Amino acid sequence: MSHHSKTWSARFSEPVSELVKTYTASIQFDKRLSLVDIQGSLAHAQMLAECGVLSEADLADIRRGMAEIIDLINQNKIDWSVDLEDVHMNVERLLTQKVGDAGARLHTGRSRNDQVATDIRLWLRGETDTILQLIADFQAALLNLALDHTDTILPGFTHLQVAQPVSFAHHLMAYVEMFGRDAERFADCRRRINRSPLGAAALAGTTYPIKRKRTAELLGFEEVCRNSLDAVSDRDFAIEFAAAASILMMHFSRLSEELVLWSSQRFAFIKMSDRYCTGSSIMPQKKNPDVPELVRGKTGRVYGHLIALLTLMKSQPLAYNKDNQEDKEPLFDTVNTVIDTLRIYTDMVSGIVPIVENMRQAALQGFATATDLADYLVKKGIPFRESHGIVAAAVKYAEEQKCRLEDLPLEKLQSFSPLIEDDIYSVLTLEGSLKARNHTGGTAPNQVKKQIEFWQKRLSDKNAQ
Amino acid sequence: MSHHSKTWSARFSEPVSELVKTYTASIQFDKRLSLVDIQGSLAHAQMLAECGVLSEADLADIRRGMAEIIDLINQNKIDWSVDLEDVHMNVERLLTQKVGDAGARLHTGRSRNDQVATDIRLWLRGETDTILQLIADFQAALLNLALDHTDTILPGFTHLQVAQPVSFAHHLMAYVEMFGRDAERFADCRRRINRSPLGAAALAGTTYPIKRKRTAELLGFEEVCRNSLDAVSDRDFAIEFAAAASILMMHFSRLSEELVLWSSQRFAFIKMSDRYCTGSSIMPQKKNPDVPELVRGKTGRVYGHLIALLTLMKSQPLAYNKDNQEDKEPLFDTVNTVIDTLRIYTDMVSGIVPIVENMRQAALQGFATATDLADYLVKKGIPFRESHGIVAAAVKYAEEQKCRLEDLPLEKLQSFSPLIEDDIYSVLTLEGSLKARNHTGGTAPNQVKKQIEFWQKRLSDKNAQ
Amino acid sequence: MSHHSKTWSARFSEPVSELVKTYTASIQFDKRLSLVDIQGSLAHAQMLAECGVLSEADLADIRRGMAEIIDLINQNKIDWSVDLEDVHMNVERLLTQKVGDAGARLHTGRSRNDQVATDIRLWLRGETDTILQLIADFQAALLNLALDHTDTILPGFTHLQVAQPVSFAHHLMAYVEMFGRDAERFADCRRRINRSPLGAAALAGTTYPIKRKRTAELLGFEEVCRNSLDAVSDRDFAIEFAAAASILMMHFSRLSEELVLWSSQRFAFIKMSDRYCTGSSIMPQKKNPDVPELVRGKTGRVYGHLIALLTLMKSQPLAYNKDNQEDKEPLFDTVNTVIDTLRIYTDMVSGIVPIVENMRQAALQGFATATDLADYLVKKGIPFRESHGIVAAAVKYAEEQKCRLEDLPLEKLQSFSPLIEDDIYSVLTLEGSLKARNHTGGTAPNQVKKQIEFWQKRLSDKNAQ
Amino acid sequence: MSHHSKTWSARFSEPVSELVKTYTASIQFDKRLSLVDIQGSLAHAQMLAECGVLSEADLADIRRGMAEIIDLINQNKIDWSVDLEDVHMNVERLLTQKVGDAGARLHTGRSRNDQVATDIRLWLRGETDTILQLIADFQAALLNLALDHTDTILPGFTHLQVAQPVSFAHHLMAYVEMFGRDAERFADCRRRINRSPLGAAALAGTTYPIKRKRTAELLGFEEVCRNSLDAVSDRDFAIEFAAAASILMMHFSRLSEELVLWSSQRFAFIKMSDRYCTGSSIMPQKKNPDVPELVRGKTGRVYGHLIALLTLMKSQPLAYNKDNQEDKEPLFDTVNTVIDTLRIYTDMVSGIVPIVENMRQAALQGFATATDLADYLVKKGIPFRESHGIVAAAVKYAEEQKCRLEDLPLEKLQSFSPLIEDDIYSVLTLEGSLKARNHTGGTAPNQVKKQIEFWQKRLSDKNAQ
Repeated sequence: MSHHSKTWSARFSEPVSELVKTYTASIQFDKRLSLVDIQGSLAHAQMLAECGVLSEADLADIRRGMAEIIDLINQNKIDWSVDLEDVHMNVERLLTQKVGDAGARLHTGRSRNDQVATDIRLWLRGETDTILQLIADFQAALLNLALDHTDTILPGFTHLQVAQPVSFAHHLMAYVEMFGRDAERFADCRRRINRSPLGAAALAGTTYPIKRKRTAELLGFEEVCRNSLDAVSDRDFAIEFAAAASILMMHFSRLSEELVLWSSQRFAFIKMSDRYCTGSSIMPQKKNPDVPELVRGKTGRVYGHLIALLTLMKSQPLAYNKDNQEDKEPLFDTVNTVIDTLRIYTDMVSGIVPIVENMRQAALQGFATATDLADYLVKKGIPFRESHGIVAAAVKYAEEQKCRLEDLPLEKLQSFSPLIEDDIYSVLTLEGSLKARNHTGGTAPNQVKKQIEFWQKRLSDKNAQ
Repeated sequence: MSHHSKTWSARFSEPVSELVKTYTASIQFDKRLSLVDIQGSLAHAQMLAECGVLSEADLADIRRGMAEIIDLINQNKIDWSVDLEDVHMNVERLLTQKVGDAGARLHTGRSRNDQVATDIRLWLRGETDTILQLIADFQAALLNLALDHTDTILPGFTHLQVAQPVSFAHHLMAYVEMFGRDAERFADCRRRINRSPLGAAALAGTTYPIKRKRTAELLGFEEVCRNSLDAVSDRDFAIEFAAAASILMMHFSRLSEELVLWSSQRFAFIKMSDRYCTGSSIMPQKKNPDVPELVRGKTGRVYGHLIALLTLMKSQPLAYNKDNQEDKEPLFDTVNTVIDTLRIYTDMVSGIVPIVENMRQAALQGFATATDLADYLVKKGIPFRESHGIVAAAVKYAEEQKCRLEDLPLEKLQSFSPLIEDDIYSVLTLEGSLKARNHTGGTAPNQVKKQIEFWQKRLSDKNAQ
Repeated sequence: MSHHSKTWSARFSEPVSELVKTYTASIQFDKRLSLVDIQGSLAHAQMLAECGVLSEADLADIRRGMAEIIDLINQNKIDWSVDLEDVHMNVERLLTQKVGDAGARLHTGRSRNDQVATDIRLWLRGETDTILQLIADFQAALLNLALDHTDTILPGFTHLQVAQPVSFAHHLMAYVEMFGRDAERFADCRRRINRSPLGAAALAGTTYPIKRKRTAELLGFEEVCRNSLDAVSDRDFAIEFAAAASILMMHFSRLSEELVLWSSQRFAFIKMSDRYCTGSSIMPQKKNPDVPELVRGKTGRVYGHLIALLTLMKSQPLAYNKDNQEDKEPLFDTVNTVIDTLRIYTDMVSGIVPIVENMRQAALQGFATATDLADYLVKKGIPFRESHGIVAAAVKYAEEQKCRLEDLPLEKLQSFSPLIEDDIYSVLTLEGSLKARNHTGGTAPNQVKKQIEFWQKRLSDKNAQ
Repeated sequence: MSHHSKTWSARFSEPVSELVKTYTASIQFDKRLSLVDIQGSLAHAQMLAECGVLSEADLADIRRGMAEIIDLINQNKIDWSVDLEDVHMNVERLLTQKVGDAGARLHTGRSRNDQVATDIRLWLRGETDTILQLIADFQAALLNLALDHTDTILPGFTHLQVAQPVSFAHHLMAYVEMFGRDAERFADCRRRINRSPLGAAALAGTTYPIKRKRTAELLGFEEVCRNSLDAVSDRDFAIEFAAAASILMMHFSRLSEELVLWSSQRFAFIKMSDRYCTGSSIMPQKKNPDVPELVRGKTGRVYGHLIALLTLMKSQPLAYNKDNQEDKEPLFDTVNTVIDTLRIYTDMVSGIVPIVENMRQAALQGFATATDLADYLVKKGIPFRESHGIVAAAVKYAEEQKCRLEDLPLEKLQSFSPLIEDDIYSVLTLEGSLKARNHTGGTAPNQVKKQIEFWQKRLSDKNAQ
């Protein structure tokens, strides 16, 4: 006999239809929460016992039964039942089968509404911690690569046009910063995840003399949700998590775009390990950067989940509504995508080999040091706007001659401004340009090294915690 | 030995990593395309044979092998291999195992790029046809319910305030119109789905003397995609489909919102079959309208998939990029959600029982016929703006007396305007108001009956096709 | 005295607060609808007169007054009033000031609910027609450019890796196809825009003996909305329009991405007119492809409007709710963005100059004709998978030698397969590869010319209509 | 002569077209940043002077000129020029007109790329502070209303079905919690807004000996962006802000939904001040809750902006690209919407009058205290599941009798369970049920009062800061 008939048959004149059962069941996906569901139940039972609502014998039975169920879960031996609708009912039924009445008393003073909210928070807190560690690992991989390339020069682009020379390390460090902010956001979100709804019961609290701070403490929650209606209906943390994940994936989409560009024959700035590429079923010469492309595509997936969650909560009256069951799949898939992407990227970064000579050649295109010439003139007293015009004219001339600025003889350069002297040629080199940007955040090698050290320390402090 | 090593090992110095293999494989979800993949292959093989590229013997082998594979698929007996990455490679390998060289010759003159585009289009065309039928079924269920209620009066709301009386049938027919437009959109989209990319090969066409119109004809495609680069990279049809599905789900979210409202104790306009409700684990008295709530929540899911697909395609250079692999899961889940929702709603509608008396009582609240009084005065020559003011004053007075307009004695009504006569009382009845809106699209019972007949005929014409 | 006090003061005990007035007013943006609002009113008045609800004298007054107001609008001389809330009330007040009672009688048998729905549809129909023409103009500009470049070869990319040679014309024609589908979608959407809600009144129809088909006919609507509740609350057409616009902008984002890539120094495939580029305030050498970048960014804008409209309609109960006022700004901005982008792109395309030599050089990189070698071997009887392996080995060898396949001496090539003969060298040329893809949709010059002619005819047929 | 010709004419052979000028100009909307642009410039100039890059005389000139420009801005007397493209160039030109060469020297050591990033951050920081204050004001308004209603009982709903009695204060406090979390998120986001990109120049830093910490200090920034490429291209803070705003608007959509429901004749739980309602142009009896409906609709607007920003940044390679100009309008409109909505809601809440009797009547429907009966039996030793069944049967019986549980005589109740005694009647009262939920977060009046006090203190501490 099914859960449905058992649980609320007295009030219902016909059983739930099979179609409805499948449509509304969540066990197919929420079984993922089984271990945290048990964790929450154990804390709840212990608190109830401490408050005298449950006997010590019942508590012992519940602990014993749950231990057996945990074993079954870990061995993947549970046959989850759609008839029992969700993970909560499945676990409770198993427990009751094992320990009888004690199992039936577990649901005292709580409801599935606060139970599921507790489960998701416990689970998401754990996944957030995993993500924080994986971000740090990925940053470490970027730092490793950067360390070798503070003097490797490639063109810095704006508008994908050659702008000014930067080091490859400097470029990589921009991503270290981005993912650093991602970690900040996940850590901020974690504080809002880590609050206990347990004890809010269906929506209004319970008539039993429960101690919500005690279960919160047992479960490692930092705070107790202060309003029961809010506690059972709040899914802010899920949306905030998806927003943080969307920004992280956006960062990956940018890096992926660059890896795809750099791997192209026209750029040829890097080689990626063969193990991160795939071939073509038809074109024998192909090596495709499949992984970054796929990551780029997966950005949409996470953006979509964010919109799904925002839409879900729009205009819902208080308190819990069944709509909320739809929070899980987008959240689960967001977590999977973020974790898998961080893992694969951390490994992939170690296989990126810059083709230093091509990067350098590219930096020599496009008059990358023209700004240095303009600054040079300004320092000799020419107003910036005038200097800008002088250099533009020189660039135009060089372009017509199909040469670089530094290929022009001094006399020619002086025809644009008599203030130009022989020292201009060192100003116009890539190395000169790089070294000259010597302040916090600038691309000068010693500045970039400082940033690498800053991050190495920060990451090692984090790991030492 | 894996597909990866076999297919492109000559050019690669290390195998694809396990992590990459799982991350990039699509067989977990694209196996859903296996039957249409075979359908496409059989048409391709037949065309190749007709063009002399393939021998008749090879064609016979391929047909025989594929027939066996279809049997295995239908019996769910295939062990899909992640090593073989996707459904195309899995099927090809199976075929080659069965029929040898003929299988290895199947991939002549095509690429996975045009193959997968063909597969999705064939599959989506079939699902679109299913959806079109299910929409018609759902409309028929609404018509059935409407048929009994052209004289059942409930308040028509604007701003959720009582506005004017309408019939329950008229209200239901608004949804018949909405889903009618949905059907139009899916049918329009179908025309753009139903075009053949086969023969575009990797991106530029093929050097074999193929006949693209022939495969198109064999597969029931209406047109051939006119540009090979576009053919392999076009996913417009998937986005358009997701947009049509989003609008359909939006319609369901509106209807669901109304069912939830109407089922509430405050409205109490309808009873829903118990088999569409669920109870509470804690509150013994509860019957919750789970299905409409869940449908409302699933709206977000489909909106999210639309955004995922739009994001996916944003800024992709030509032609095929691996990002596109991410088109499948959102599309599959959109199709599932739309089909399941249509099915469950069609069944659920037949279990909706209007509580006619409550609807009527509600229509008697809120001065629903005040506009009729204003129109009455206008017809007696009072300018509308003046008439509007007179009625507003009468409403204010009645509200203070806590009575309805029709409860006021004639003398009292005449104190607001001497033009009011005894015939006003029939104007102020719900039935009088309803009947008076007697033009195309109005709520008068005979007009609503006309619309029901119009749709009954349209649906039966459709089914007769 | 304000509209608010005048219109519903009898029933209200305090005036609307200033804050509310500004927050809820729409005149700041819906004044854009003033001309279609008048167009709708004129048709409504004529129909009322024909039905005997309005006198001929009133109709004449209304026509005279409206003609004056149209003049004022065209001279931009109207001082729109926030006190009067929206364009409908502003126009009505102006009319009443000019023609007195006749103006006050205009609102007989309609409501702002059906009026605003009529206005938006009339307006959007006109904008859709503009867009359809602009798409055709843009396609014509692409065709013009393509016409000169059916023999200009550049590498076709998949995964941004060199895949096979294609012509520049072929590449451009892919976009002609995409925008052709956009036109189809806008045309399909136009059918659903072009239906008349007029006569639905507030939500239930009206008690006057109106003729809805007559106003529909006068306004050029193809159909009459068949249900009054649906008529005033349907915004499907706005969402569908925004979805079509999103797909169009996605196409522009792809083309923009390519123009940015092609303009970069690394690709250097094209030059764009200086008038479409901007410089830098700091870097004198810069020419930035601002327009395509901005277009790429504006994609997000239109995607956002689509989501805004979908969210807006989610879970709204029938019939009209004030939420719907939020439909206008996203729709207006979507139309502006699409029209401006089409115009600027049409002009910009004519200023694109391909750098033919660089394109060719790029096509000579990356073993673009390796597939041709594989096909060559297949035609000599080698199974495709074996042939694929042979070519992969040859590519690997050539790569190590830093040469092209065609640079290898015949004996060397024969060491990979003895079937290779002297005729291979013509197969391996870019021209040979191009010409060989000679079927519908293939990149062979004569095939691409056929497609250009097809589109030239289709566009000229369209313009001849 | 236009900025365009002046600034980069030397390098360009034709002027920017008029169409392009309008399409790419941002002055129409970014003039909003003029005051923070000047603030940033003044700090930059002071730092340059302190570093010896600018003379004291130049600094004095710049300060004098900027003071004049600020006056003009405050008097709304500036004629912003589209020819000058953006706010930066407009201000610089004005300054140069006023103070000559000193103005031309201001742009030394910076670029518009770091300048605009600085401007947006300064501006958004200010708006965030305004929003934080407005949230606190809104919470205070909710607290004021709650304070009077800790004993006002209405039904708590789950699934919009009567679940258990709660107090109106408890219900309002759920929203205080939600907006409290919104404040947390904006405060967290503020930390990431409040970092200085100034000195990153175009993308790589500058060759002048600048002190970035000094300008950061002068502008009140907490940190300096540590990487120049990241500094000019980072728009994370804008997305994070839009995500926080989306969640806030989602909360408003929920509250608005409830106000609309509660204002309906069927619920009739509250009256809203007439000044927050509007009437109908056609129906004289209407009072519509326009403001909450419009707020509900505006949720979509902000969700849309979030998607616009996420789409904008997707797949952008480093560093600055013109796409980023599209960040401003969504951000500006998000800020406007959030600020206006908070203001209008704070005022509106004070005009909400609960209709206590209707709330109470509603709580007496639907067997709201059935759970209390179940708990009563559990406390007498009956296992919960059995107790649940007993109550379900009693509810079914009472429903058939069309009476409440408390209307059943004791003997009848005892027929369901002999354990029921006379004290049950106080358990079944609304007050008894309310008081029994007496733990942190429960709806018992003394618990809700504690929460009100907690928030009053928190808000007053905040204001005391």
